Amino acid sequence: MSAKSVGEKLVALCKEGKNIDAINTLYSDDVVSVEAMAMPGMDQTQKGIDAVRKKNEWWYENHEVHSGDVEGPFPHGEDRFAVVFRYDVTNKPSGNRMKMEEIGLFTLSGGKVAKEEFFYSM
Amino acid sequence: MSAKSVGEKLVALCKEGKNIDAINTLYSDDVVSVEAMAMPGMDQTQKGIDAVRKKNEWWYENHEVHSGDVEGPFPHGEDRFAVVFRYDVTNKPSGNRMKMEEIGLFTLSGGKVAKEEFFYSM
Repeated sequence: MSAKSVGEKLVALCKEGKNIDAINTLYSDDVVSVEAMAMPGMDQTQKGIDAVRKKNEWWYENHEVHSGDVEGPFPHGEDRFAVVFRYDVTNKPSGNRMKMEEIGLFTLSGGKVAKEEFFYSM
Repeated sequence: MSAKSVGEKLVALCKEGKNIDAINTLYSDDVVSVEAMAMPGMDQTQKGIDAVRKKNEWWYENHEVHSGDVEGPFPHGEDRFAVVFRYDVTNKPSGNRMKMEEIGLFTLSGGKVAKEEFFYSM
């Protein structure tokens, strides 16, 4: 599948809040996930689909999502696309409500997402 | 300079329509610029600051910009940042007015922009 078609499937699933389905169906077992920076208590890079699923679950367990918006995909060539994610969330441990906006850069290998990299400021 | 500080300067200049000043002050002489896909009459990749300036001039000569919005920067690590560009333009040769949205991915080397890559659908 091309970057555009994988990106369209990923965006459609994420718009429905089915991020875990996107991981299960579109990601390589060897996927690497890289945050914009190292965060306390979590490595900047997660390796393997199980680690990526766990990070996703951790995020949903620790954030209440009030609303979200997923925009894209924005393809580049045959093997990459970018997606804009916007969320209005409350961080459950702190109780802080915040608007988050980040760009995900997805790189394919063999038609599957082999790398996801997130771009944002804290 | 870090990705965040270069990105902030680039976004500030582009918000003022001073894209050429961003090229002149923030780009490496050896910068490489890559479009999302090959387009008729133009190589997908431009190499060197003169070629990048020419592409920029060509774009402004061929588009009337009604309004624009530049959002970011979204940094990742110390050497990359992304920027969202939105333009309401009329393509002068065709007379077609259109809304464009694209994501620019900027990679630094030695504190200067060494590569810009654009992500969009046509």
